[in-house]
Amino acid sequence: MINIGAPRNIEKLYKFKDDVSNPQIFEAWKPKIKAYLDDLVRETPKEYLVPASEVPENLDEKAFDTISYLKKTKYLTDKEKSITSTSVMDLEKLIEKKKLSSVEVLKAFAHRAVIANEFTNFATQFFIKEALTRAKNLDEYLAKNGKTVGPLHGIPVSVKEQIGMAGKITHGGWVAWLDYIPKEDATSVKMLKKLGAVLFVRTNEPQTLMHLDSNNNITGRTRNPHNSLLSAGGSSGGEGCCVSSHASAIGLGSDIGGSIRAPAGFCGCFGFRPSSRRISTAGGVSSGKGQESIVAVEGPLAHSASDVNYFMDGYINTGKPWEDDPWSLPMPWRQVEKPKATDVTVAIMYDNGLVKPLPPIQRGLNEVTKKLKAAGVNVVTFDPLCISEAYDVCHQLYTCDGNKAQKEMLRPSGEPLLPLTKWAFSMGNGDKPLSITENRALNTRRDTLRKTYNDYFFKNKVDFIISPTYTCVAPCTIQDGIAGPYFWGYTSLWNVLDLPTLVAPTGLFQNPKVDKVEEDYKPRSEIDEIEHAKYIPELSDGAPICFQLTGRKYFDEEVVAFGELFEDIMKA
Amino acid sequence: MINIGAPRNIEKLYKFKDDVSNPQIFEAWKPKIKAYLDDLVRETPKEYLVPASEVPENLDEKAFDTISYLKKTKYLTDKEKSITSTSVMDLEKLIEKKKLSSVEVLKAFAHRAVIANEFTNFATQFFIKEALTRAKNLDEYLAKNGKTVGPLHGIPVSVKEQIGMAGKITHGGWVAWLDYIPKEDATSVKMLKKLGAVLFVRTNEPQTLMHLDSNNNITGRTRNPHNSLLSAGGSSGGEGCCVSSHASAIGLGSDIGGSIRAPAGFCGCFGFRPSSRRISTAGGVSSGKGQESIVAVEGPLAHSASDVNYFMDGYINTGKPWEDDPWSLPMPWRQVEKPKATDVTVAIMYDNGLVKPLPPIQRGLNEVTKKLKAAGVNVVTFDPLCISEAYDVCHQLYTCDGNKAQKEMLRPSGEPLLPLTKWAFSMGNGDKPLSITENRALNTRRDTLRKTYNDYFFKNKVDFIISPTYTCVAPCTIQDGIAGPYFWGYTSLWNVLDLPTLVAPTGLFQNPKVDKVEEDYKPRSEIDEIEHAKYIPELSDGAPICFQLTGRKYFDEEVVAFGELFEDIMKA
Repeated sequence: MINIGAPRNIEKLYKFKDDVSNPQIFEAWKPKIKAYLDDLVRETPKEYLVPASEVPENLDEKAFDTISYLKKTKYLTDKEKSITSTSVMDLEKLIEKKKLSSVEVLKAFAHRAVIANEFTNFATQFFIKEALTRAKNLDEYLAKNGKTVGPLHGIPVSVKEQIGMAGKITHGGWVAWLDYIPKEDATSVKMLKKLGAVLFVRTNEPQTLMHLDSNNNITGRTRNPHNSLLSAGGSSGGEGCCVSSHASAIGLGSDIGGSIRAPAGFCGCFGFRPSSRRISTAGGVSSGKGQESIVAVEGPLAHSASDVNYFMDGYINTGKPWEDDPWSLPMPWRQVEKPKATDVTVAIMYDNGLVKPLPPIQRGLNEVTKKLKAAGVNVVTFDPLCISEAYDVCHQLYTCDGNKAQKEMLRPSGEPLLPLTKWAFSMGNGDKPLSITENRALNTRRDTLRKTYNDYFFKNKVDFIISPTYTCVAPCTIQDGIAGPYFWGYTSLWNVLDLPTLVAPTGLFQNPKVDKVEEDYKPRSEIDEIEHAKYIPELSDGAPICFQLTGRKYFDEEVVAFGELFEDIMKA
Repeated sequence: MINIGAPRNIEKLYKFKDDVSNPQIFEAWKPKIKAYLDDLVRETPKEYLVPASEVPENLDEKAFDTISYLKKTKYLTDKEKSITSTSVMDLEKLIEKKKLSSVEVLKAFAHRAVIANEFTNFATQFFIKEALTRAKNLDEYLAKNGKTVGPLHGIPVSVKEQIGMAGKITHGGWVAWLDYIPKEDATSVKMLKKLGAVLFVRTNEPQTLMHLDSNNNITGRTRNPHNSLLSAGGSSGGEGCCVSSHASAIGLGSDIGGSIRAPAGFCGCFGFRPSSRRISTAGGVSSGKGQESIVAVEGPLAHSASDVNYFMDGYINTGKPWEDDPWSLPMPWRQVEKPKATDVTVAIMYDNGLVKPLPPIQRGLNEVTKKLKAAGVNVVTFDPLCISEAYDVCHQLYTCDGNKAQKEMLRPSGEPLLPLTKWAFSMGNGDKPLSITENRALNTRRDTLRKTYNDYFFKNKVDFIISPTYTCVAPCTIQDGIAGPYFWGYTSLWNVLDLPTLVAPTGLFQNPKVDKVEEDYKPRSEIDEIEHAKYIPELSDGAPICFQLTGRKYFDEEVVAFGELFEDIMKA
């Protein structure tokens, strides 16, 4: 067995006591899980699969690089590789000009998705036949009307499973929800359909949706496409893997503590957490119904910042989600030009003062600093600002109902609790419910934090803050994710503050030869020790290094436009 | 003593048990109240007062019409009357063109305000000397720079007392808060100053801010300017009275259940409750810190819909409140043209099914229907939609912390609880605190209501809903407001739904000869009986009839633009 650096005695930190699992009850649910998995097999087109001999049996024991495999494999044609490497905007132009049909675009992505899934297990459901009919209809519409139905006409889009689809099981990672079949599409699904998108795959997520990894008792663990031993991140880990594998043109995830950004950061694609209420979350399965202290958002995972911009523009300005869901803001998506490097001031969070980033992240931040400075960007150091306060407020708010909503969703199936579920339930005050008065006091502390950070931007004339996505690159999560990720503080900070944050790849990757363990490191705290103890350079080989770009609340457009500049500078 | 139709045995409906008042403790606070009142007298310019002989001693026993008095009095010059009758936009133009100075505009309003206050008691603080210095500085700025500082340059604006001002006691109607002197202005006050407004008066509100009337243990009861026996509404009753008396050019109030709209409706001016987060509420004293289920909003009370539009435009587009308070949305105020009558479909709520509107309101709605139809507006009937559900959700949410926040604000002073405070504390589950889980369930029910109403507009192709502001015109509230208002359901509906709502006068007034009691009326419920029993036509003589115009969430601009059309049609 590989030593994955799992923290010893993590149980001693559990504040979670009331385990709602029940093996006897769970037994009765196993046939439903089997039926669900059988459906996945049945709906996977056999002709798309690579021969079994291509797929190593020990994917969870020996690192396998799916990204490289997909680039090299002979089972995808050059045309399929070319289509699946094209940006959304360019695909849309090619479809509009009839240089590509919706059907052939779908087939290319579906083929790549099926292969990628054999190695990584990112899909919870395929419905490619249905998608083919949809793509045919779109082609006919274009032929007949001479115009597309919308800005995503014919674009194959992957969607996190938790986002409800009419007539399809929507379980959100909870076994008990295998019985739930929504009658209506989630607002976001309605929007995607309205814009012309072709939906064909739904993607994996963790039990409870509250891990920065993606493992559950239904479809199991999603592997990192760069290295099969590593976490794909979570909770939108299926999306992170799918989009990074170019198995969809763009995907939709959700995020309450890092759930779009950890997957993007671990798998190496762009991932955007918009300010709240710009993208609708209506119609998703979650434990957060009626919870308003730290709200979940949905947002895209994509191959580029400009694809993120294109998606947000289409979703908001053409989709008009507020007509279906009044929670969404009728705030148009503004077209903001990519800024000039010399006009930009960036503050870099080299360390949040709570958990020190590990060597690959340190190296990455230094490289990024060099490149930004070379490009003319004004780079300053971000001094930790109320980080402990934000962490405390966040964790108390996550569990302020004493995990009641979560337990009521787990209890009916009696499913076993995964280690990271127990970890999430141990945040804040664990199983102890707070009063409404205490909840409001935490909201007020949160609002003070928001004001403090808003003032920070103005007082320091800082346009954007760059920060690590996580303490390290993707951690190893074989053996039920026991090796983490544990510390959410780098992503969850931006959820407490509700600031728009784009994860962007740097083009850098972990390298065991360079990113060695700091042997003499003295941990600052228990959580710092946990995060540092489990870093084993050899295990993370090839994991991408990605950072978060954060701007002011509701200035989402500026963040994405800066993402385009960042992308240029990193590629230069 | 006048029979004011006070409901008998209202106490039997009290769910409120824990009375935090304590006469002994309160005794110690009386000198602070006296000092506060002495300051009000000291800061009232003697030269502005009318002779004591002009002010009837029995204002609380015999109806007195301050509005008519102000129009006729010789103690205001014709020029003062003319200035105080000019719209904000026209005043601004006259100041900009130097046809009027900021000083003379201030003096005219301050003079009218001081006189109006002698009859109605709407002011909690005057600071006219300070305002004169400010006005002089503005005049000098304009003379020197040839331009104004902003769109409210030299405009005398009244502000509800609860909205914090640096260096000035800000008590919000709680005696214990007489010790509170904010160091910083509330965001809205900063905005008003930034725009060039001249602040000179702060206005009255009720104990706890949770009455639709304005009476407290500090400055007492504000009288309705049309009829001194009637309520000025609440909680922004001081504003309603001040603006309707033309004692300020425009005013700023706040609203969580009708607190802008009841005062506007009772006193006969325009009052706008915007969608949440368009006008900042940061820096106000309230019991709602961290409470997000039904959020308070601030908004203007004004002489016309176009003044409301002008104010919102300036506050949002020039003020940019989000730079100071990130809770505010950076959503520009759009310039929307007044619609054509024939393009508009209006649904009229003649009755919400829960409490039947009383005769003056019935007559008013019928008159409005006739006028709208004559103008070409498509008028349909609004069939009550989830009214009981909204009322229940709203009342449970108001008190879901078991009134804890309120009690902690009342307790230190031991002040006696006014009857309407007891009524507000009896809403929902009264003193019984709910759990966070129950709060979330209520939020979810609220969100379902919001979706239902959003769908209503689209499915029925309805642009606006017109509804009563209250079951009746302003009720009699001498004797500590014992005769109500009790039923908040007509205004609080729009708070639960967070829909932009403008109260607009119809030009109609209660008339005892026409609006007779429905003798054979069979009450539907206890609350319906209470509201009907206390209608005594003779007591409400001359009270204005005003209605609410409601549109879709964040389509505030359309509501105000329709308000301009409504105003035209009512005047026609």
